[in-house]
Amino acid sequence: MKSGQRRVVIENVSPEINCGQHAAKRVVGQQFEVSADILADGHDVLNAHIKYKHEKARTWKYAPMKLSDNDRWSGTFEVEKQGYYEYTVEAWVDYPLTWQHNIERKIDDNQHVNIELEDGIQYLEEVKTLSNQHTEYLDGLIKAFTNSKSYNYAIDEARSEKLHDIFWKNPTKKFSTVYDKLLPLYVDREKALYSTWYEFFPRSAAKKEGEHGTFKDVLDIIPYVKKQGFDVIYFPPIHPIGTAHRKGKNNTTNALPGDVGVPWAIGNKEGGHKDILPELGSLEDFKEVIKVAGENGIEIAMDFALQCSPDHPYVKEHPSWFKWRPNGTVQYAENPPKKYQDIYPIYFESDDWENMWDEFIGITLYWNELGIKIFRVDNPHTKPFGFWEYLIAEVKKTDPDVLFLSEAFTKPKTMQRLAKIGFSQGYTYYTWRNNKAELIEYMTELTKGPMKDYFRPNFWPNTPDINPWMLQGGNENLYIIRHMMAATLSSNFGMYGPVYEQIDNAAVVGKEEYLNSEKYEVRHWDWTKTNKLTQLVAKINQIRKEHKALQFTNNIDFCQIDNEQILAYFKQSEDGKDSMLMVVNLDPYNRQGGWVQVPRHKMGISGNQPMRMTDQITGNSYIWNQEWNFVELDPYQVPYHIFSIDY
Amino acid sequence: MKSGQRRVVIENVSPEINCGQHAAKRVVGQQFEVSADILADGHDVLNAHIKYKHEKARTWKYAPMKLSDNDRWSGTFEVEKQGYYEYTVEAWVDYPLTWQHNIERKIDDNQHVNIELEDGIQYLEEVKTLSNQHTEYLDGLIKAFTNSKSYNYAIDEARSEKLHDIFWKNPTKKFSTVYDKLLPLYVDREKALYSTWYEFFPRSAAKKEGEHGTFKDVLDIIPYVKKQGFDVIYFPPIHPIGTAHRKGKNNTTNALPGDVGVPWAIGNKEGGHKDILPELGSLEDFKEVIKVAGENGIEIAMDFALQCSPDHPYVKEHPSWFKWRPNGTVQYAENPPKKYQDIYPIYFESDDWENMWDEFIGITLYWNELGIKIFRVDNPHTKPFGFWEYLIAEVKKTDPDVLFLSEAFTKPKTMQRLAKIGFSQGYTYYTWRNNKAELIEYMTELTKGPMKDYFRPNFWPNTPDINPWMLQGGNENLYIIRHMMAATLSSNFGMYGPVYEQIDNAAVVGKEEYLNSEKYEVRHWDWTKTNKLTQLVAKINQIRKEHKALQFTNNIDFCQIDNEQILAYFKQSEDGKDSMLMVVNLDPYNRQGGWVQVPRHKMGISGNQPMRMTDQITGNSYIWNQEWNFVELDPYQVPYHIFSIDY
Repeated sequence: MKSGQRRVVIENVSPEINCGQHAAKRVVGQQFEVSADILADGHDVLNAHIKYKHEKARTWKYAPMKLSDNDRWSGTFEVEKQGYYEYTVEAWVDYPLTWQHNIERKIDDNQHVNIELEDGIQYLEEVKTLSNQHTEYLDGLIKAFTNSKSYNYAIDEARSEKLHDIFWKNPTKKFSTVYDKLLPLYVDREKALYSTWYEFFPRSAAKKEGEHGTFKDVLDIIPYVKKQGFDVIYFPPIHPIGTAHRKGKNNTTNALPGDVGVPWAIGNKEGGHKDILPELGSLEDFKEVIKVAGENGIEIAMDFALQCSPDHPYVKEHPSWFKWRPNGTVQYAENPPKKYQDIYPIYFESDDWENMWDEFIGITLYWNELGIKIFRVDNPHTKPFGFWEYLIAEVKKTDPDVLFLSEAFTKPKTMQRLAKIGFSQGYTYYTWRNNKAELIEYMTELTKGPMKDYFRPNFWPNTPDINPWMLQGGNENLYIIRHMMAATLSSNFGMYGPVYEQIDNAAVVGKEEYLNSEKYEVRHWDWTKTNKLTQLVAKINQIRKEHKALQFTNNIDFCQIDNEQILAYFKQSEDGKDSMLMVVNLDPYNRQGGWVQVPRHKMGISGNQPMRMTDQITGNSYIWNQEWNFVELDPYQVPYHIFSIDY
Repeated sequence: MKSGQRRVVIENVSPEINCGQHAAKRVVGQQFEVSADILADGHDVLNAHIKYKHEKARTWKYAPMKLSDNDRWSGTFEVEKQGYYEYTVEAWVDYPLTWQHNIERKIDDNQHVNIELEDGIQYLEEVKTLSNQHTEYLDGLIKAFTNSKSYNYAIDEARSEKLHDIFWKNPTKKFSTVYDKLLPLYVDREKALYSTWYEFFPRSAAKKEGEHGTFKDVLDIIPYVKKQGFDVIYFPPIHPIGTAHRKGKNNTTNALPGDVGVPWAIGNKEGGHKDILPELGSLEDFKEVIKVAGENGIEIAMDFALQCSPDHPYVKEHPSWFKWRPNGTVQYAENPPKKYQDIYPIYFESDDWENMWDEFIGITLYWNELGIKIFRVDNPHTKPFGFWEYLIAEVKKTDPDVLFLSEAFTKPKTMQRLAKIGFSQGYTYYTWRNNKAELIEYMTELTKGPMKDYFRPNFWPNTPDINPWMLQGGNENLYIIRHMMAATLSSNFGMYGPVYEQIDNAAVVGKEEYLNSEKYEVRHWDWTKTNKLTQLVAKINQIRKEHKALQFTNNIDFCQIDNEQILAYFKQSEDGKDSMLMVVNLDPYNRQGGWVQVPRHKMGISGNQPMRMTDQITGNSYIWNQEWNFVELDPYQVPYHIFSIDY
């Protein structure tokens, strides 16, 4: 049985994910808030702090906690380094502060407190042993507390702010309680939270129509991507593509001669996951792409798709990594009654799973060694959770800079679990959240509920797999709106181009699939083409760079506005220095207006103090000095305002 | 690293209180539902069960779980014995069922499945090793699955309900995952959930005005309490009362000669917590009270108030159990600037805490040995949580029948914590929940949120410490209403009488205190007096006995009714056999009417099937055959209906 003298209990610590099984996530430089319910019997004064350290630090640090309401305490500290932190909460009955609290009330009641003063000497003696900064003052008090001639001085000092401060800064922590779990926090580099992705097929990079694009062609596209303001280029798989059961254009079952196949059907005689499709170029060419992109402030994200075409070398080298049918063939992918004979899924229940895991970790480490620090993982929800948990932890031990984006468009709890076990970012349902209520509900779930601590959303208006119903019939205005919201609701966002910015929205009838999809064929694009959307993409990416408030997601607050077609939201940087108001017309056809409520209270603006609202797109400036302000947005001009607020 | 072949993850198990630190609570005979999120990669068929056992059982039992929605699974089992149960969740990819699911879809698609049939033989072989009930059938299938002549038979049986049932009942549980915590459940006797309390001061039991009541007098009151239908009599402390700083009538600071003092100022020369106030009688007299009460189906609940008067024997015997001031006196109770010099609180930080705890446990065991199985604990929130957790566990090891009611009218999280650490029941805020919205909100918090699993409310319209504002000005109708709601909203309820049923509501001006409170003086009552309220109390207690639906609290559902002055609620027994509808007019002055919606859907009543509504108070019967029905209640007649529903 534990010490019966310990009176404080700590419960309901937050963040605490699955009882501390999974780490909360932050990026370097962020504030980390920890809260807890702290209770004790009776009415004594309590005190508490967060106890934390980086995994490599030798000593604990402490951050003070304060009581907010209803026995809830909270405090914050800044995370400075990548890697794991551990944190917990320590709380105690603060006997010196309780003594001071009580004597103050008695003095105010004009009671004679000579016995209470005498009682206080023990606390003065204790605090002397904890700090040698106030010895003289404390010695003086000890004398005064027992000398009736200095009674008035004694009672003044007994309840003084100075003594309170000494007690508060030097807690005795007698009989303190430490919460029974050390909780994990994982800190990533900043890109985990603020990144701007552009996806394209390198094979569509050729200058001449009809040619297969190469990495050399890609070098000429990097300036476009840089001009557009992106900092991550994500390529679909760049590995040799299977020939057995290869798919033809528009997902036809049998490829015709010259059909290039699906990049996700990985592996053929020329190699597998560590090899490069010869048509794209050599390993040296790819290294050059990584290098030139890096010089332009752009990282290359690789696709990590753990599946094999029937001609992948693994099939012969590691037959036990596949499931074999009684007829001696390998089990191809299926979702009965549908068959996907061009794909062999990995048999993760293999008895040889340990070697298999090592090999797959080896793939990521191989590319990481060549400079790849971001992996977009294809369909992680079709491989075991435990595998990803182990792989991500192992890779991050080698290079903590490595980030993993989970491409799991699946059930909510599966997406959440993938984030809990280590994925740095996740694709989201944003692609299908269209109206105001849906958008607010979804953003609230992501940023105000438990997910805020472990799931970093990455918003995409489209992907090669998703030509959303809404965009299929959309006009340019809608593309402009959906892009702007992705880029300002979420600090991580991406788009798949040039199909998006060139508004190439032809679809397979009845499906959310692109017609003539680049998944099945080489396309040709005019990479020099500019339009309203390309200009706005570049502009918004520039605004995101200049405004810290847009580099976070959880800092969003939706604003009241009396029009269901207008969405308004406010974001502020943690230091309070950068405040932004976004107002967007969701209706791509009609001018909409309404009165928007600005959270002046949150910014500490009172009365009718003016705010200068500068539209970062147009450069126009307005003075607002009220809480409610009228806005009107014409979708055929710019369907939104992105205001910076100065006051 | 764990087995990589395990693909299922289990999380968010419920109930799980503070990560399994505290036990969920049920009473013997209740159903216990366990839920969990169960996930795996891919689309295979999953399966799960609850794994549980009583602490004294040697082998595990299993209860099947079913998928409800959004990856949430749940199952139930019935708890049969008092004491601790352990439970957890086990889940697995069900390979045989996955095989059956897939082959069924292929057969429906007219695919030829001879390879799939061959593949299925392994599952037939496996299930043969788990059950010998179907050997012949399974052997036949194994032959048929490889014989092209019996193909039609094979595909019929492959997707048969019979084979599904064999697989489902004999899971291989290959690579199964067991949730990483064994969770505790504590099962009490039924009285923990369904009890009917009557509190009175035995010293007010004398037949002659001006005399001090005795236990012998109490014997004559037991028939009244029985007639009124109560099954617990709770006495304020019956121990010797301190004389130092004794309080006089109406809480005056200095007692006059003849003043009897406050029963909660425990201890004087004549003894302490194990002794009896001589004016009440002898230990033998008290034992007689316990015996006679028992013969009448009534248990005696003792007050357990851990504090001492200055003349309690502990002060001399165990000076270290009190806090001493620098002037050599004991620290009396205070809430600065207020002083309570008649009470010495226990100093729980004493270095001698282990002996102290043993002594206090000894007090409860002493009375328990004499037949006391219920303790109403006075102000538990002013003593350490850890102390109660240990004491309750120790006492229940000796006698699992012992129940503890927490008298903690304090902050919500403190009340919750006391329930978590073991208190069987708790007083509540019911006393101050008056209007419809407040009542519904509070009942919802108690019965639909996390508290439902560990906090058993006990509703009291009044106590000796609380003469609620609302009742102070209330007429008889209001007393009738407040009593009825206490007794039908909560399966545990109590009242402090005869002050309540005789509507003696004189108050100390400006306080929720009774004037001429029995806390400070002997009162005299006419125990033969009957009135409308006493008749209704007896009637409702009889209805509670006859209707299982009223013996539970969490089974409440509020019904829509288009009048803010009428509260309507439905309760049903777990077996569905007893359905009750309560409709109460909250307005004690005016007749109120409205249309109430009966949850016919919940009872499985469709169309316009009639329900016979029998008012259990008046015996009147009505036929309702619609969802919405009109009611009207005159507070000067009976302000409520308590309907049983037959259909």
